[in-house]
Amino acid sequence: MRVHEIGEFDLIHRLEKIIPKKGEGVVTGIGDDCAVLRMPGDLSLWTTDSTIEGVHFLPFLATPEQIGRKALLSNLSDIASMGGTPLYATISLSMPSDASVEWIERLYEGIAEHARKYSVAIVGGNTSMSPYGLRLDISVLGKVPESQILMRSGAGSGDVVLVTGTIGDAFCGLESVFNPTITVDPEVRNTLIQRYINPFSRLREARVISESGIATAMIDISDGLSSDLLHICDSSGTGVEIYASDLPISDEVKSFSRSCGINPCHYALAGGDDYGLLLTAKQETYEFLIQKVLEETGTVLKKIGNITDQKNSRSLVMPDGKSKVLGADGWQHFPGVYSQE
Amino acid sequence: MRVHEIGEFDLIHRLEKIIPKKGEGVVTGIGDDCAVLRMPGDLSLWTTDSTIEGVHFLPFLATPEQIGRKALLSNLSDIASMGGTPLYATISLSMPSDASVEWIERLYEGIAEHARKYSVAIVGGNTSMSPYGLRLDISVLGKVPESQILMRSGAGSGDVVLVTGTIGDAFCGLESVFNPTITVDPEVRNTLIQRYINPFSRLREARVISESGIATAMIDISDGLSSDLLHICDSSGTGVEIYASDLPISDEVKSFSRSCGINPCHYALAGGDDYGLLLTAKQETYEFLIQKVLEETGTVLKKIGNITDQKNSRSLVMPDGKSKVLGADGWQHFPGVYSQE
Repeated sequence: MRVHEIGEFDLIHRLEKIIPKKGEGVVTGIGDDCAVLRMPGDLSLWTTDSTIEGVHFLPFLATPEQIGRKALLSNLSDIASMGGTPLYATISLSMPSDASVEWIERLYEGIAEHARKYSVAIVGGNTSMSPYGLRLDISVLGKVPESQILMRSGAGSGDVVLVTGTIGDAFCGLESVFNPTITVDPEVRNTLIQRYINPFSRLREARVISESGIATAMIDISDGLSSDLLHICDSSGTGVEIYASDLPISDEVKSFSRSCGINPCHYALAGGDDYGLLLTAKQETYEFLIQKVLEETGTVLKKIGNITDQKNSRSLVMPDGKSKVLGADGWQHFPGVYSQE
Repeated sequence: MRVHEIGEFDLIHRLEKIIPKKGEGVVTGIGDDCAVLRMPGDLSLWTTDSTIEGVHFLPFLATPEQIGRKALLSNLSDIASMGGTPLYATISLSMPSDASVEWIERLYEGIAEHARKYSVAIVGGNTSMSPYGLRLDISVLGKVPESQILMRSGAGSGDVVLVTGTIGDAFCGLESVFNPTITVDPEVRNTLIQRYINPFSRLREARVISESGIATAMIDISDGLSSDLLHICDSSGTGVEIYASDLPISDEVKSFSRSCGINPCHYALAGGDDYGLLLTAKQETYEFLIQKVLEETGTVLKKIGNITDQKNSRSLVMPDGKSKVLGADGWQHFPGVYSQE
């Protein structure tokens, strides 16, 4: 069934049945000109993210449920990486009038399942006809206690740099789709593609980290580790030293890198879409934090470098001890002039 | 200059300089994973709206500044029509990589000027490359005192139905663009097109109305008077009786209608994009409200009908006294089956 066969209001009616609408502080959700909310918490966090067909997702690669899940996850990840709890979301969808109603319903089911898991209420949105491909804009509001907020600007000289899980997996997954001639074990290939279309949610880890009081700054890795790390350095006015041999690289990324003849550090530093957490923490207590995150979530938090007071020095120390300049070579839309080596 | 020549980060940097970033309660705006806000007021209002090239705007018809202004206006209108005050906005933009940087800057200047006028801070957003046309998603957060909130569900039997200004002008403007062979005075045509690309902002009127305590329900006319009126009736569980001869129709709409050989009521009832206010108010005091809005804003508020307790009776009384069924024949995306006569 096509969208133009049932009309906009019928489509909205069907989608409304799929999503969770109730939550703490929701006075009125969908059905008026605005959502009416009684925002809890000291401070509110607000983020928005676009998911565009052919840019952020490939319809032949992922199921609509997976596309919906990831679109919401990228927003929840922004809230979590500042130490917050997501509460409410709006969904703005534009699609061609011959889009499949069943496909759109499955997209919303993916969003709804992930929203229910983290108690997020969908309180509003928008559907529009568009002559172009599908585009989904999700916006999320959350809360954070003032004492637990983690900004990009909080890193200080002497802090250690930590990262959750392994990095570069999602990037390699996408690369393997665009370069199908690369010879790599099919199981490795599938695992990497799964990391791209179905990234881990790090909300529980973010909660443990923010409640510990040990972290000083945090960001989620959406553009790529090097780009996102430089955001922290720029905001905090610090330098950084990263050790190539300490980067947490999965066996799959190593295997894929060997097949391509490329240093796996490239994928680990430049790859976005992992949605891992990149954080800085106090030197004295970071080991306790690593232990705590492992115990409470099973996720490995790994030290990969140190924050320095040399503002303009951002370096990557190679296994031979030589330093390279760390550039913002993570994914960038409309690549312009890069400040990389 | 094209967007791909300067890169995403440089574009964001340029756009950041254009927009107003500070406002009451803004702890951190653009520059972190989320905006951090200390929401003022009892209740928060949240709305989001899409503006898509070829659907919501025609680049050959309006300047980028006008497109930006209207995109923000449609959101502020949603906040105002519930009795609220807009506070913060996010802007999510997707565009082809060969889009003109100057055009995008002018679009943001249009948004910025309207935002400054109503003290709205731009606290976040997103820019993405897209193989398709330009799409702008603006989301706005506002505040409202609990005692002044105006929901769609507040109308009661015996209330009068009121509307600001004249209606149908924007629709006729758009019709005259798509039907250039219709013979109509060029000045009339220009006025109508102006109403489409540059609709009146009714924020001051909405403020006077909500503070009066006389209105019982309110909505902004974005889909068309009949559609939006039926939203009020559906939410309030009431019927309605509208008098065709009382519809406030401008001389320009009358002139355009004559040229087309169409009853001007059609344009007044079915036309969206006017962003006028449609409200219900108490029978005993509505005349005082009309007087107050006129005195404080210069805008005419006109009575066009009455709310009835006959839930399933929504009628349009014609000048000859005969009644027609009032249908939701306002603008609907993906038109499906209409319940109109």
